This record gives sequence, C-alpha cells and structure tokens, in this order.
Amino acid sequence: MRALLFDGTAARVADLPRPAADAATAVVRVHLAGICNTDLELIKGYMGFRGVLGHEFVGTVADGPAAWSGRRVVGEINFACGQCATCLRGLGRHCPTRRVMGILNADGAFAEYVAVPLANLHAVPDEVADATAVFTEPLAAAFEILEQVRVEPAMECTVLGDGKLGLLVAQVLARAGARVLAVGKHDEKLALLRRRGIETTRLERWNRARADLVVEATGSAAGLALAIAATRPRGTLVMKSTVAEPVALNLAPLVIDEISVVGSRCGRFEPALQALADGSVEVGSLIGARRPLGAEALREAAQPGALKVLIEP
Amino acid sequence: MRALLFDGTAARVADLPRPAADAATAVVRVHLAGICNTDLELIKGYMGFRGVLGHEFVGTVADGPAAWSGRRVVGEINFACGQCATCLRGLGRHCPTRRVMGILNADGAFAEYVAVPLANLHAVPDEVADATAVFTEPLAAAFEILEQVRVEPAMECTVLGDGKLGLLVAQVLARAGARVLAVGKHDEKLALLRRRGIETTRLERWNRARADLVVEATGSAAGLALAIAATRPRGTLVMKSTVAEPVALNLAPLVIDEISVVGSRCGRFEPALQALADGSVEVGSLIGARRPLGAEALREAAQPGALKVLIEP
Repeated sequence: MRALLFDGTAARVADLPRPAADAATAVVRVHLAGICNTDLELIKGYMGFRGVLGHEFVGTVADGPAAWSGRRVVGEINFACGQCATCLRGLGRHCPTRRVMGILNADGAFAEYVAVPLANLHAVPDEVADATAVFTEPLAAAFEILEQVRVEPAMECTVLGDGKLGLLVAQVLARAGARVLAVGKHDEKLALLRRRGIETTRLERWNRARADLVVEATGSAAGLALAIAATRPRGTLVMKSTVAEPVALNLAPLVIDEISVVGSRCGRFEPALQALADGSVEVGSLIGARRPLGAEALREAAQPGALKVLIEP
Repeated sequence: MRALLFDGTAARVADLPRPAADAATAVVRVHLAGICNTDLELIKGYMGFRGVLGHEFVGTVADGPAAWSGRRVVGEINFACGQCATCLRGLGRHCPTRRVMGILNADGAFAEYVAVPLANLHAVPDEVADATAVFTEPLAAAFEILEQVRVEPAMECTVLGDGKLGLLVAQVLARAGARVLAVGKHDEKLALLRRRGIETTRLERWNRARADLVVEATGSAAGLALAIAATRPRGTLVMKSTVAEPVALNLAPLVIDEISVVGSRCGRFEPALQALADGSVEVGSLIGARRPLGAEALREAAQPGALKVLIEP
C-alpha cells in the first residue's frame, strides 16, 4: 500500500506492506485524513518519531471481526495496554506503555490502510459525512478541556490562536455557555467564529483584558507568555500547544498571580461525535484543501494561516 | 529608627523616620523578623524593589487604636484596597493595586518599627512564643496549598526542597493526611521531618517515583523540570519558588501528561496560627540563628543549606 513515511529526515510516499488484522486489531481503509500541527512538529523532530504519519482519519473497516467489518469508523489514537493501574483508573490515554497512532511506535493514517485496536474504534453515524467525521480527533482534544476545567456559564474565556484547534476550542467553550473572546491573526478565520456568534479580535487590536480561563492554542513557543499575561489572578490557563524546542519563560507571574496551568492533550471521542452529529460545532468551513497523499500536502499545511488540509490516500 | 534598607544595589542599615499610624494603620514594634528566600531574590533584583526589606515578623502594636494598642501581633503582607472587584471576591491578596510589605511599594519589617494596615493584623495567642509566631507568614504560604488543591487522605505527595518552606509544606501536607515523601539535599534538615514521622530521601537516592501531587519548593530554577518529571499523568504540581531569572523549559511533557501546574503564593493566617498554637506543626527546629539587624544576617541566610535566620531589630 502507499503511505506517507517519515524516516527521521524527510516525509515521502513509500510502498509498504498492508497491515494485518488480528483478534484485537482491525485494519481500516482510510477515506480521509487530516494534517495536524503535531504532524508538522514531528517532522521537525518532536518525539523522535519514525514511521507513517497521521492520526486524524475516517475510514471503513476492511479487515476485522464481523461486528466491525464494513462499518465506517473513526479511531482514538492512544493504544493502551488496558491492564495497568493507569488504564484501570480509566486513563488509558496516559497508559505508560501506550503506543500512539502516527506519533509513538505506531504507524499512522496517512496511508491507504491503518491498523487500529478494536477498543479504539467508534462507529460514525450515517448523518456525519466523511469530511465532518475526520474532525472527531481534534474536536475531542477541544472537548478534553471540559473534562479538566470547570467551565461555568458566562465565565470569561479567551482563546489565543485561530488555527484549527483554536477555532474548535472557541466553539466548544461557547457551546458550554462561556463568554468567549477568540484572539487571532487572520480575519477570514475569525470570521468563521463571528458567524457562530462568538466575539473575536485581531491580536494587534486586542485590549489584553485578563480572563478567568485562557486557552493557549497558538502552536507557538511565544504563545505561553502572552497567555500567562492574559490570565486573571487565580485563573486557569489551558496549554494545548506541543512545541518541540525548550521555551525560556519568566515563571514568577504564575506564582505571584497563583495561576493554574493545565496541560491538555487528547479527549474522549463520544462528545465530539455527538457535537458533529447534532451540528452544534461547525467544521466544514475549517477545510482549506483536499490533496493526494504526498509531502506536498504537509508543506501546504505548514503555510502560515493554512486551514485544515485533508489527505485522500 | 534603624532599618535594613535595600537601595537597588546593596542592603545596609540606615536611620529612617519612624512610620506614623493613622486611622487605618498601626505601627508595630518588631520583636523578631524572619529572612525568606524572597528577600534574597529581591536583593538580586526581583520585583525591582527599593526600601526596607522583610515581611515575616512578630511584634507589639506601639501606635494604633486602643483595641490594638499593646497587643502582640503578626500581620498579613498584602495591603489591599478592599474596594475593587478582586477584593470584593475575597481575593485581597491579589488586589491589582495592592502594596506588599517589604516586596512592593511598602516598607518591611527588618526595622525597629513597621506600619501595618489594621485589616492585616492578627493577635498572637499568649501560648505562642515570638520565635514560633514569626513563622506564621511562611506557614500560611504552606497552608495556601490546601486552599488551591484538594488533598485527600493517603494521596501520594512529593515535596521537593528541604529549605524552610519545604519543611513547612511537608508538615502541612502530612497533617492533612497525605502520604508525604520529602526530597532534599541536607540530611540534618530531613531528620527534622523524620522525627515527625514523615518519610524522607536524599535527592541522589530518590527513586523518582511519580506522585499525584508534587510541591516544588527548591527555590531554584532547576527545580521545576525535576518536579514535572516527578508528577504523575493528570497529577498536580504546586510551584512555590519565585525565581527572578527566566527559565528554559521543555513544556511538551506538561501537555502530554496533562499535568496541572498551580502557582502558589501567600495564604490566610488563621490556619497557620491555629497549627502553631496546637503544636501540630513544629517550627522551633527550623531556626538556624538569631542575628542583629544588618546585611550580615542576609549573607548568612544565603549560605547553601541555611536554616531560618531571625533578625532581632
């Protein structure tokens, strides 16, 4: 099968053996896969990953048990052991021996086929189109914030970053009843939120009023210092960006203002699939391009201000 | 009066006018004052402070209303406006226009007399000696953790740092029922905790097992990276050290492990005074020396491994 392989130096299309199903693993034919900022960090060296990239996908089970065969699915990306103390506490996403699709010791979905543990599969409702379902994974990461932080109605929330994740986070917080201000650099992207009734501002016009909850989703090392300054004393800052390089930070304001910084990664798929099914989060306007499998799609996704680039393997 | 003044370059004893009382402010004759790591950071440039240092003290009200005159007191260090939205939410310690004794726009207690707002005074119970009461402020900072983080019985807590604050934090967490492991560099200081039934280890022998709650009280820039690595996925890291210089950190583990970093500063005095009165936290063995007012006392406090140096003005 054809797959987009990262060998530690460059990402290129390679011809690889099709993965095999077993009693606990299905093989999914990939319909669509999304490029995430993490993929762009991985090819800069983050995590030391080698293998097939890609962890956002929707597809059809090609090989697997009868209960799954032929079903349209999305898949959670953390492949947990299911046996250890962490897994038994319901935190399989943090299993210490986990593999992570397209990120850590597991091939990903920028390929014609991808192997996924049965425990990670979720059936996609018929009314959710492929181009919508492919956003389940990043939308679940946005919903993860609601599992970690108590978001109360009318709570003042600032979302920094109008990248794909920032646009999803702003919608999720607004859906939870928060008063959201989205801060970004790209008026055409912020306009997507304004059409959903969410207040927005360009970074250079932002009054920098401090909020109870700030979500840092800029994807840049500089974002965190900005986010600290924008968080009210005793407020909460959710950190979503994974940045490969070390960041020099003045941490005294965290102590002085007693700010809580909450690292936030992957989420459960159920609330994301539900929000996609009921239309309460809009993702169609986040799609920038559909491209064939190839390094060119990654380069396009790395352009400043790029919307979501989808790969059709 | 004689006072230990920091002029931006050096700390020296100066002869200053005695502060004056007014309707809202008492003048306290200082019996004893404690040197804190923050004082040592201030004379390195932290906060750009100029003035009389010192924010841990016990004394007697020399000038003030009859209700306070002659009473033995300690005083909270954040001088809040009492009127703003932050103050009205009960967060006077975060009042945006606050002055902070010996730290921000207010002279401190390394002096014969110090001015303290009446609202900040707490009477010291007769059974609490001066050398005990002078620990109220740092002990309140240790108790602050319990206001910010839910500490449950048998919760695994690691305290990094066997400085004065670390030794207080370990006792406060153990008193709250946590299973505490204190990690330090000085066996004679860790021994103080072992006598209270608290488990300890020297840094070089520590197995680095990850804990639900980690308190970073090393006072050093390097402590935070160590603390991140010692926090369990989805665990909480309380950051107590205020360090003047920027710190280069790899923040990806915070996101990957979804760790919450909680900045923690000053606390309410009530629980600290109560614990000192009932003897459930022991502070006498934390005293290293009593010294007259002078820069020499600061130098002694800055020695590696120094216990609490008290100043007798």
